[in-house]
Amino acid sequence: MKQAFDGYALGEERVDIENVLNRVLASDVRSDVDVPHFDRSVVDGYAVRTGDADGASESVPAFLKLIGSVQMGEENTAVLRENECMYVPTGGMVPKGTQAMVMIEHAQKVADDEIAVYRSASMYENMLRIGDDIRVGEMVLTKGKRLYAQDIGALSSTGHREISVYKRPKFAVLSTGDEIISPDSELTMGKIKDINTFALAAQIESFGGEVAIKKVVVDDFGTIKSEVEKATEKCDVVLVSGGSSVGEKDYTYEILKELSGKEIIAHGLNIKPGKPTIVADVDGKPVIGLPGQPASALMVLTLMLDILHEVFYKNVRVKTYVAAKLDQNVASAPGRKTFQMVQIAQGEHGKVAKVIRGKSGMISLLSKSYGYFVIESSSEGKEAGEAVNVYPLQ
Amino acid sequence: MKQAFDGYALGEERVDIENVLNRVLASDVRSDVDVPHFDRSVVDGYAVRTGDADGASESVPAFLKLIGSVQMGEENTAVLRENECMYVPTGGMVPKGTQAMVMIEHAQKVADDEIAVYRSASMYENMLRIGDDIRVGEMVLTKGKRLYAQDIGALSSTGHREISVYKRPKFAVLSTGDEIISPDSELTMGKIKDINTFALAAQIESFGGEVAIKKVVVDDFGTIKSEVEKATEKCDVVLVSGGSSVGEKDYTYEILKELSGKEIIAHGLNIKPGKPTIVADVDGKPVIGLPGQPASALMVLTLMLDILHEVFYKNVRVKTYVAAKLDQNVASAPGRKTFQMVQIAQGEHGKVAKVIRGKSGMISLLSKSYGYFVIESSSEGKEAGEAVNVYPLQ
Repeated sequence: MKQAFDGYALGEERVDIENVLNRVLASDVRSDVDVPHFDRSVVDGYAVRTGDADGASESVPAFLKLIGSVQMGEENTAVLRENECMYVPTGGMVPKGTQAMVMIEHAQKVADDEIAVYRSASMYENMLRIGDDIRVGEMVLTKGKRLYAQDIGALSSTGHREISVYKRPKFAVLSTGDEIISPDSELTMGKIKDINTFALAAQIESFGGEVAIKKVVVDDFGTIKSEVEKATEKCDVVLVSGGSSVGEKDYTYEILKELSGKEIIAHGLNIKPGKPTIVADVDGKPVIGLPGQPASALMVLTLMLDILHEVFYKNVRVKTYVAAKLDQNVASAPGRKTFQMVQIAQGEHGKVAKVIRGKSGMISLLSKSYGYFVIESSSEGKEAGEAVNVYPLQ
Repeated sequence: MKQAFDGYALGEERVDIENVLNRVLASDVRSDVDVPHFDRSVVDGYAVRTGDADGASESVPAFLKLIGSVQMGEENTAVLRENECMYVPTGGMVPKGTQAMVMIEHAQKVADDEIAVYRSASMYENMLRIGDDIRVGEMVLTKGKRLYAQDIGALSSTGHREISVYKRPKFAVLSTGDEIISPDSELTMGKIKDINTFALAAQIESFGGEVAIKKVVVDDFGTIKSEVEKATEKCDVVLVSGGSSVGEKDYTYEILKELSGKEIIAHGLNIKPGKPTIVADVDGKPVIGLPGQPASALMVLTLMLDILHEVFYKNVRVKTYVAAKLDQNVASAPGRKTFQMVQIAQGEHGKVAKVIRGKSGMISLLSKSYGYFVIESSSEGKEAGEAVNVYPLQ
């Protein structure tokens, strides 16, 4: 799937940095300014010339003439001459000629205009010179970076107020099935309340996508086909849940084959859950048939989002996890990579991963899930007590 | 801090489940319905009475009369009698009297109204009975749960369209300093572009908070005091960045002492970075003086949000991480818990945590940070090659 859509390009837009949390940079960002753009102190203390404090100690201090102090945020036009010092607070501009800052803890006022310095200072100690931190034109953040708080701070400090980010990828979520009704409709016999459109849409939102179409579609060949067609025009990714299995009325495969006009990229994945997943290329866009079972559909979508992240942003999502000890043996599905859903509980000796079991399609498989761990297809399974990395489902 | 604000209660509001991602449940949620609310199949196959397939095998199949098939989403009013079977798709309603489902893979149509069944079936195999998954009134999700995609699916399927969540906690972000200007203002000597209001606000947004006040405040006792006072009235949490150190013009401690009217909860934390942090109780609300250095301020806020999560939601945030090998030795700050910022890189043998070093106050400390690892105060440090758990800063 990654290879098939490798050239896919999302649009770009300029967004104010107050609104870019979780968005992804569409171009490299370089600094507009030198940081700092003046020589500044990183401590509260006295600006000195290093030669004047050479050999200074508690017993033999250097006595320097205090020529004043600078106010925060003010330009400092003073010039430091031999045997002079000046008070500069943290972040303040040092006078011309400053070679180091001596912290107030290592100095003492001995007269109105005289400071005893108890330490020698090395060149440029406790200060930053122009561009020491970041030079004008230097790369600050690279294209494809997802933006978190620290990045937004870096953007603002290097003079950026608006930046180019990728447009949110647009998703369509089509849940097929004649049995599905809205959660606020009254349940009648044979019907079930809609789960997938809500759960899948929320997961897309977590990913930073936009759900442009969200619909329950009746299980009719023509209807599904026309809805998928419309969705493909408007969206970057189309999800069709249900109808990817092998039952009587599972049209998705046939529809995607017709719409794609070429080989289906994947029909049946070597994973559990998620075997009935279908991936097709319709007009250059990924159309994904997800399993109808809610827990399976959400799990497969999560894995697909990892791949789509690479397709859209050309880098791999860093996945974090929590280590936990398994509460029971888990067999792997022979020849398939297994994604086992678990709860997380706090045990006496650390976190415990409690395996969630139940019949296929149970909602409680979903509501109890914190996340999943992976059993490679080459492995026979994991044993009770074994440590596993549990990835949150979100 | 946790103890001091233990009784703090956020307001509640009812929100549509389409808009509750990342919100926190303000009350337990029980199911409004039995799930399933009719006996349903979890496979595509034939509804049978178990006795009729007793001892059935490939060589000696059981031949059953096919009485019809049910449509998805339709009520099934049929009754299954001895030696009868009925086709039911996955999720479909089984006829009255059904004791098990036999998968289509284990059966074959031998005549228009006759099915050969090649396996015996155990009681209630491949089907769910009313309430098997979730009973009406059963607890689905508990108060204090942060809502992710799987929870939203569980809510919709148990009949909830609107639920009670905590109001987003309101934060004020006050950055003090005469040197701070907006990122779109022109840099003049002595000034620096604002970082903290942007970075801290983004982190609050990640947490699920609302930034109700965001302001740069001049470094003047009266002004800061009145701004903190106003912010405390309007917000749940007030952050004051800068002014928590020991320089000449650091008013925060005095101001918080005056406004609090009682003992300051914490003045100076045993952590690095973050020593100059101040926590005060002003009218029952946490007012937090953060270090002025951007990387320190963001790190301390992140830790404070962990505690505020416990205060607001009465449970501990599950923190996920990525394991990585340290690229160099890191000494701990004697007697202090150290939070060391690192980059994450992909090495030959797994992930590498690259220690970020630089002078205090450098922006690049921030822009390069993926996250941090922890050195306990009792430890002397970590060595190159040692495995550490790196927590993302977001």
